[in-house]
Amino acid sequence: MQSYPLVLLGVGGVGRALLQQIVENRSAHADRFGLRLNVIAVADSSGAVVSNGSELDDQTLLEVVALKSGKSKLAEHKLGKAGGDPLKILQSLQFNSANSQSLAPVVVDCTATAGTVPALLYALEQNSKVVLANKKPLTVEQEVYNRLSRAGLTTGAQRLDRARWETTCGAALPVIVTLNRLMLCGDSVTKIAGTFSGTLGYVMTGLQAGKKFSEVVREAHRLGYTEPDPRDDLGGVDVARKALILARGMGWQMEMSDVTVEGLYPLSMDGISVAQFLEATTSLDEYFATKVKNAAKEGKVLRFAATVENGKCRVGPTLVSVESPLGRLGGTDNLVELTTRWYNPNPLVVQGRGAGVDATASGVLADVMELAYTK
Amino acid sequence: MQSYPLVLLGVGGVGRALLQQIVENRSAHADRFGLRLNVIAVADSSGAVVSNGSELDDQTLLEVVALKSGKSKLAEHKLGKAGGDPLKILQSLQFNSANSQSLAPVVVDCTATAGTVPALLYALEQNSKVVLANKKPLTVEQEVYNRLSRAGLTTGAQRLDRARWETTCGAALPVIVTLNRLMLCGDSVTKIAGTFSGTLGYVMTGLQAGKKFSEVVREAHRLGYTEPDPRDDLGGVDVARKALILARGMGWQMEMSDVTVEGLYPLSMDGISVAQFLEATTSLDEYFATKVKNAAKEGKVLRFAATVENGKCRVGPTLVSVESPLGRLGGTDNLVELTTRWYNPNPLVVQGRGAGVDATASGVLADVMELAYTK
Repeated sequence: MQSYPLVLLGVGGVGRALLQQIVENRSAHADRFGLRLNVIAVADSSGAVVSNGSELDDQTLLEVVALKSGKSKLAEHKLGKAGGDPLKILQSLQFNSANSQSLAPVVVDCTATAGTVPALLYALEQNSKVVLANKKPLTVEQEVYNRLSRAGLTTGAQRLDRARWETTCGAALPVIVTLNRLMLCGDSVTKIAGTFSGTLGYVMTGLQAGKKFSEVVREAHRLGYTEPDPRDDLGGVDVARKALILARGMGWQMEMSDVTVEGLYPLSMDGISVAQFLEATTSLDEYFATKVKNAAKEGKVLRFAATVENGKCRVGPTLVSVESPLGRLGGTDNLVELTTRWYNPNPLVVQGRGAGVDATASGVLADVMELAYTK
Repeated sequence: MQSYPLVLLGVGGVGRALLQQIVENRSAHADRFGLRLNVIAVADSSGAVVSNGSELDDQTLLEVVALKSGKSKLAEHKLGKAGGDPLKILQSLQFNSANSQSLAPVVVDCTATAGTVPALLYALEQNSKVVLANKKPLTVEQEVYNRLSRAGLTTGAQRLDRARWETTCGAALPVIVTLNRLMLCGDSVTKIAGTFSGTLGYVMTGLQAGKKFSEVVREAHRLGYTEPDPRDDLGGVDVARKALILARGMGWQMEMSDVTVEGLYPLSMDGISVAQFLEATTSLDEYFATKVKNAAKEGKVLRFAATVENGKCRVGPTLVSVESPLGRLGGTDNLVELTTRWYNPNPLVVQGRGAGVDATASGVLADVMELAYTK
């Protein structure tokens, strides 16, 4: 049995689900793939639970899951050590030399902060590998993206397969792997267009069904489909991060400030309370009703899409043909169209659930398993 | 620059397009990935063109492309050696020991015969890797599939990343990679349903549009969308091979004889000439018109689909909801729905061009490049 060590940064929803899936899949991984994932450390912002010997046993992992489900901190666990700096935690493991593990561990980032960047770069320098569910490190400066992904670097050959970040765009949907394959074979990707937010999909589907903007936003908020402050979804910044990751994956060199973001509400509505915002959404009802009506006259529908094309990366309400894959999409599923030399005029389409901690964790686990097989 | 040796078996449409893409992508592969694909031998059923030194240069590769475009045989090339047994060709390369290459080459099978099986197994034994565009080796006995794919074997850990066969189902569409990721993470795939034939897609779209069966078949034949004998498409055996590869990819152990195939014409029409067959298709017009009409009454449409579910693998005309991804599909694109624990009730969907030598070759090239990065 091959053993593959793993360090997990971030034990919020996705990280917790990942630990659970690692425990659940022990026998399948052993039977089918002859492989055992050894979790040697788990960290949150309070500190880390670190194995004394070779790995944390299943009981400890499930204790960590229970602890975090109860909103407690890892530092409170009996094996917990205080101090949440991910770089210091990795350095303390000394995994490349003194540690008894022969393989450098894969470092899995399930946090939602760019504060893990030094730790991730350190891991790669130590000949380790990284898996990111966290978009932030890939959307800071281009140079950091390049070092993490090795894309676009002639010296990148040795490290191309040292990083995975499938779940940063559309959860576990095979978007990044598909884009990477198109880049590998030299197909020329001319356009990527997609929806990357179930929440915004719900809102746009409601608008298309004739609901008022205020009505559908309040409904989504009441049902818990949006963040506590719905502007965090409606503003489109999270979608913009995904668009930037896709553009960079196409080999483009650009920054977040180069992404054009048109949210579903004007900036003037940023300075008020959530309750006031929800109240004020009625002022946008007519605007969106007109937009939808005008679109229909041209045989088009309104989607909240990311579009990467002709050197430009744009996120916002977008008119698409009612006959296109994006136009036929309804509900909360994500959908990505990739138009290339060989997929033209009809794009290559990937569609399905693009959110949820369990689905996302399953994609992280697939990334880890793929890396376990690339020496 | 890392160099990666490659042996190509089969220089028909896909193999020829692959050689052309390798030459075209030289600088992109060098710049972006620091990698050079060195073609050391190319074989067809007549013989092989084998490099004397380290690799065949671009001029020789383009000569081979020109030769095969002109329907000539490789044995006729000035570097050609007669004798088309792929096993003997590989053995003569002695690539694992005496050859100057430090890496064992990837062996790419672009033939359409199961006759390559001994060569492919030999290559794996010699610590080489294999890429298949050829469905046949994966659809003979289960044991051969297992040895080629290493799926389901506890001793498979070391070799999981020694074989790729993405283009056997839906050309370069990311179907196998998606299925493999679902298997790796332990998601439970409960159903795969898809269309895997542009020709049959064309026929079914015609039927749905109210055309007569005889009319749409004759049209497809006249336009060259079908094989010279359209029964080769309409019978569904090629789709059945793809369904078997998917079922085996789900970990099922089954043989071609376990796949239920319902073609678009009765067996009694097998013994006649192509002209007689095309004439006789009128006898099926009413049957299909009724089928389509009855489907519509239930809110359904008729697709020629492969369905892998509940231990059964079936290929044939299939009723699907007009609201499902398969139901909304029109034209010649392929579409695959994967229903799993996490993609449920809405499946994960992959859609796009599922045929064409250039698109297929691009998928083969992506497979080769992925393997080049898995030591």
